[in-house]
Amino acid sequence: MLRMTIGPTRIAPSVLAKTAIHPLAINDPEFLKVFAECTRDMRTVHGIEKGLVYIIPATGTMAMEMLAVSFAPPRSKVAVFSSGMWGDRWTESCRRMGLDVSRISVNARGPIDYGVLAETVAREGIKTIFCTQVDSSSGLLLDLYEIGRIAKKNGAMLLVDGICGAGCEKMDQDGWGVDVLLSSTPKAMGVPCGLVMISTNDRATDFLKNRPWEPWTFALDLKPWTSVMEAHNKGQFGYVQSPAGNLVMALQEGLRLITNEGVGPRTARHERLRKELHAGLEKLGLEVLVKDPAYRSNGVTVILYPEGKDASLLGQLLANNLTLPGGTHPEYGPRTFRIGHFGNVTPEDISTTLSVLEKTLKGSSAA
Amino acid sequence: MLRMTIGPTRIAPSVLAKTAIHPLAINDPEFLKVFAECTRDMRTVHGIEKGLVYIIPATGTMAMEMLAVSFAPPRSKVAVFSSGMWGDRWTESCRRMGLDVSRISVNARGPIDYGVLAETVAREGIKTIFCTQVDSSSGLLLDLYEIGRIAKKNGAMLLVDGICGAGCEKMDQDGWGVDVLLSSTPKAMGVPCGLVMISTNDRATDFLKNRPWEPWTFALDLKPWTSVMEAHNKGQFGYVQSPAGNLVMALQEGLRLITNEGVGPRTARHERLRKELHAGLEKLGLEVLVKDPAYRSNGVTVILYPEGKDASLLGQLLANNLTLPGGTHPEYGPRTFRIGHFGNVTPEDISTTLSVLEKTLKGSSAA
Amino acid sequence: MLRMTIGPTRIAPSVLAKTAIHPLAINDPEFLKVFAECTRDMRTVHGIEKGLVYIIPATGTMAMEMLAVSFAPPRSKVAVFSSGMWGDRWTESCRRMGLDVSRISVNARGPIDYGVLAETVAREGIKTIFCTQVDSSSGLLLDLYEIGRIAKKNGAMLLVDGICGAGCEKMDQDGWGVDVLLSSTPKAMGVPCGLVMISTNDRATDFLKNRPWEPWTFALDLKPWTSVMEAHNKGQFGYVQSPAGNLVMALQEGLRLITNEGVGPRTARHERLRKELHAGLEKLGLEVLVKDPAYRSNGVTVILYPEGKDASLLGQLLANNLTLPGGTHPEYGPRTFRIGHFGNVTPEDISTTLSVLEKTLKGSSAA
Amino acid sequence: MLRMTIGPTRIAPSVLAKTAIHPLAINDPEFLKVFAECTRDMRTVHGIEKGLVYIIPATGTMAMEMLAVSFAPPRSKVAVFSSGMWGDRWTESCRRMGLDVSRISVNARGPIDYGVLAETVAREGIKTIFCTQVDSSSGLLLDLYEIGRIAKKNGAMLLVDGICGAGCEKMDQDGWGVDVLLSSTPKAMGVPCGLVMISTNDRATDFLKNRPWEPWTFALDLKPWTSVMEAHNKGQFGYVQSPAGNLVMALQEGLRLITNEGVGPRTARHERLRKELHAGLEKLGLEVLVKDPAYRSNGVTVILYPEGKDASLLGQLLANNLTLPGGTHPEYGPRTFRIGHFGNVTPEDISTTLSVLEKTLKGSSAA
Repeated sequence: MLRMTIGPTRIAPSVLAKTAIHPLAINDPEFLKVFAECTRDMRTVHGIEKGLVYIIPATGTMAMEMLAVSFAPPRSKVAVFSSGMWGDRWTESCRRMGLDVSRISVNARGPIDYGVLAETVAREGIKTIFCTQVDSSSGLLLDLYEIGRIAKKNGAMLLVDGICGAGCEKMDQDGWGVDVLLSSTPKAMGVPCGLVMISTNDRATDFLKNRPWEPWTFALDLKPWTSVMEAHNKGQFGYVQSPAGNLVMALQEGLRLITNEGVGPRTARHERLRKELHAGLEKLGLEVLVKDPAYRSNGVTVILYPEGKDASLLGQLLANNLTLPGGTHPEYGPRTFRIGHFGNVTPEDISTTLSVLEKTLKGSSAA
Repeated sequence: MLRMTIGPTRIAPSVLAKTAIHPLAINDPEFLKVFAECTRDMRTVHGIEKGLVYIIPATGTMAMEMLAVSFAPPRSKVAVFSSGMWGDRWTESCRRMGLDVSRISVNARGPIDYGVLAETVAREGIKTIFCTQVDSSSGLLLDLYEIGRIAKKNGAMLLVDGICGAGCEKMDQDGWGVDVLLSSTPKAMGVPCGLVMISTNDRATDFLKNRPWEPWTFALDLKPWTSVMEAHNKGQFGYVQSPAGNLVMALQEGLRLITNEGVGPRTARHERLRKELHAGLEKLGLEVLVKDPAYRSNGVTVILYPEGKDASLLGQLLANNLTLPGGTHPEYGPRTFRIGHFGNVTPEDISTTLSVLEKTLKGSSAA
Repeated sequence: MLRMTIGPTRIAPSVLAKTAIHPLAINDPEFLKVFAECTRDMRTVHGIEKGLVYIIPATGTMAMEMLAVSFAPPRSKVAVFSSGMWGDRWTESCRRMGLDVSRISVNARGPIDYGVLAETVAREGIKTIFCTQVDSSSGLLLDLYEIGRIAKKNGAMLLVDGICGAGCEKMDQDGWGVDVLLSSTPKAMGVPCGLVMISTNDRATDFLKNRPWEPWTFALDLKPWTSVMEAHNKGQFGYVQSPAGNLVMALQEGLRLITNEGVGPRTARHERLRKELHAGLEKLGLEVLVKDPAYRSNGVTVILYPEGKDASLLGQLLANNLTLPGGTHPEYGPRTFRIGHFGNVTPEDISTTLSVLEKTLKGSSAA
Repeated sequence: MLRMTIGPTRIAPSVLAKTAIHPLAINDPEFLKVFAECTRDMRTVHGIEKGLVYIIPATGTMAMEMLAVSFAPPRSKVAVFSSGMWGDRWTESCRRMGLDVSRISVNARGPIDYGVLAETVAREGIKTIFCTQVDSSSGLLLDLYEIGRIAKKNGAMLLVDGICGAGCEKMDQDGWGVDVLLSSTPKAMGVPCGLVMISTNDRATDFLKNRPWEPWTFALDLKPWTSVMEAHNKGQFGYVQSPAGNLVMALQEGLRLITNEGVGPRTARHERLRKELHAGLEKLGLEVLVKDPAYRSNGVTVILYPEGKDASLLGQLLANNLTLPGGTHPEYGPRTFRIGHFGNVTPEDISTTLSVLEKTLKGSSAA
């Protein structure tokens, strides 16, 4: 069975092995070293030199909310630049907590109109911008350089969900002016699910420390973690909520594999695999949701069902030993299926995926 | 090195082995079966027949807040019956989210005055009661039967943090009338950190479903998980936030070990170990914070430093290959140290702990 | 100078005289009698037999927020059916307090599409509906019978701002199933500004009394006023916030004048004056914003500036001793001006208004 | 009937006469002049040269909440220095809106321990302090100079409810460093109930304008009034919520009377009357709640019932044509009654009050 899922993705044996090491005491100097190594390597993956890296046991949704509660002043105006379900979820979180959200819908098929964002942010005086670099429901890749420019021009803080990008897309937090960047383990990082990684630049860290208001939550407030992470950086123990030791050990190994491969080469590898996949899809007459290759992500491809097909295709693929996830986009969901091709995916996985697709489509159209 | 910590506790090899199994796809029928087994066994551990069990990747603090945001009507009156830092943390979470909290302080040394709780709840018309069965900063064991009676008499909902109790104390959610019971993996359950387990009785589940208001948060709202868990119970897939597959596999094995041992025998074993430990401590002239054995928990013992000793004792113990955590109680913290003796602790661990303590105390007093 | 303003409108001399009576002590039995008379007559004006009437010193905006904070469960879904700036303001208040608002825009020129409201309420499961019977920025009259039917069908609570309707439009709170009806003194009631009157039917009063949650505010919560008003109804004193005695005395006299005229005849008189005015406007070639007379309110008329005219017309009218207010509608504001013709307006006021308008329009077009 | 009430107090005939003047249109240049005169004179009464004066139709409770929602950052730490029911009410408002309130109880009988406030503010890092200059339930006068020093030392903002002080106590907003000062019409100002006056110094005005967060409320937010008041100061019309015209006219005359008398002489007159009253009470063997005259307010006296007397005394006084209000202090309420002696009270009122008290006490003790 070949699983081309969005997450959890294939995990390397050495990472699994480290997951099974007995966790150390949370204040064991050895464990603090592991933590320090993880934060060091996360800087490389996120493209940030200074600032702070947080490693926290939580789901992606909890982490997204953590960013919103920690950085957006209560009931202030915020923009969510959304190309799919994750942007929409961020919007819902913002709405629940009482923020004045401008949800700016991005065409999931591209092209991306950054002008609407620029105009809204300027007109409304918005000082907090949220966006999802790659929304796994659309497979669309945002250009964070463009969004960073808009944020800078308007003195706004930029908070990015890079969960589907970290480890397979170019990441330049410093260069783009991303104030807060979030990623997670079970996508292109190839590490078991359960941890989120958040990096804040100096502006964002200072904001947290000097914030005059408090959020409605203690559990999801990033602020009390700040001194913990600063302590760790000095090899000292700090405590606010317990770390998930086994997952941190796994992350350490996952990051070692990534930095060994090199972030640049790893991104390039993902790009090659994506292009191979898309060339193959085109040959099979399958249409990728995102029209222009310039806007396509390296890790997730959303595909329109061909004429006459629907979700029953996924069951036929399964019978041919290929697991593909269905669509989840608020608009295109029922008309699409998806291929996850990040992390430890190989060229053979791509060719197998294409050949099973070909066989299944022919077989079923013959029937 | 013997580690008698509060968490993470010693993990059985078979549990660690399962942690390293490659996670299945989140909608794989095999994975849904694992989930169903976990929820079945959690019912046994929590002492609840009907109702719903939730398994969620989160920290204990996040789970505590989840209970508060999901069940306490906005700005309503709530009581927190607190014997230490975890009750105080719950108080802080309640305060942040705008609840009208009556924090009722429990004497960490005992005896426990349930009358103050009864009186406050009746006088203030409180309809939501939070308590920590065993606060790891005090080692005090609350009698949930008594608190359940107070809740019932006042028509209040009772939400219990059983993190330090599940797996080593008697648990009778149904019998006691606990509406919502929370536990976590890395204490007496002997499973890696990262998951919380929440069981709701029918009254609590109905409350969630019919709640006219929404909480401030999407990420920490238990309500959207309800249909997911109900789907799992029918062997169907549901999605709201991604599960942490490796930890769920580990939980399955951890629960198998617990139900194999039997919840009753396991509790009895913890009680025996606790009594052996306390007898030994008495011989050494060490005073347990909780005076009356009737109020002492089976898993955590908080001990007052003997005359002339302070936290430097922990370093001396470490030099003798025994790791013990320091005190964390808001009042007694600096004057106490702790022993964690739950999960896979053996009689040999108890005797070693006592002998190292004896040796170290003598040695240092000799010095 | 003839002032055809939206508020404050012309106040009868007997009402002004009562405004100047020295206020009694707030617990004086005489004052409680005045209060009782006011609530009795307000029932007649609002068309409600049972339930409770509240008389509170506040602005209309504060009262609108009072309704929203007191009756809409926190973060619940609510609908605002808005034809202008007051509906929009209610939307903003709802948004600020964190409600999940569906703002349903009503075409200010008519016709009114109640179907969109019905559909939204049903689809979203909305249980709280807000609407402004007559929005003073549009002059459009909603049919509360239709909206009441939608509310009933969906088990929703209906809260109506009747500030521009009470005293000049048909009011049948009981018959229409309006749960909460708000009005204010300085419009068709012809009483000085400063008081709001709120009537709740039994369902709404019970809702308040049994509400499990508390709003974010004490000052704007209607609940603590409930026992005060119930005490007043029994001739007993109750206190939560101080009444504005002089304005209550004025209200008593204002209500006496209204009930003496009779609510039916008073409404009929307003209708006649409105028709005379509109006939005259048509002769002058002036276009009323609301196209169909069936949707026009009896008290406020919004008029499009004729070709070639703009807000400078208002200055010219002023020079001819006629004060008319400018437009305030979010969309049509700059293109419209307004005539207030409720309360103590006479047929002569209507004819003078028309003749000054004629003279001014001719004069200025001649120039 | 002599009414020595706390509010509404006796209103001068010229003020009542102005109450009955027909209100002008809200944008009438004449009306804007009245407004400008009121704000000019309020500066004199409040002792502030620069900054902004707001005149708003609302109750005192609404105004107190206005200050809290507008100036205290969400969920931030605030202190309420409370000597009675109004401080407690402010605490409740703060609690409802989710602030982290330290309620510092002031001994209603004096002396006042400013040290506890200083210590709490410093220890907790509190940046917002609320206090009631004179709480009408205790009659205790706070020394705002002392509290201003504490605020300055800690960089905290000081917000004062001066409702029972404005017009009868020394007021030096600038000199004391009070950032926001609130007063109301129906106490020592001798103007009908329904308006509140708020003055903000430049620091507070700037804070409002640059506040990054928004409060939960639109109706009680002071911010949108800022541009309205700034427009009025330039003789221009601005609108956010309608003013209560009749009350503003009355306020103009009330302020004219105060500034004619002179704020200094007026305060001195109140002091003389208070001392006469207290000397008389002492002769009658009646004990004032506030022990030390240095802490007694000029406008409200709270008196302990003499041995053997209770609230039935008030009915006996009423039978002798003297209306006195009962006690309202949370602790001393049932054991006290009160005399209001501010505004247009005369020396004859004081002597009559004393003689009726004497007669009634003797008569009833004789009976």
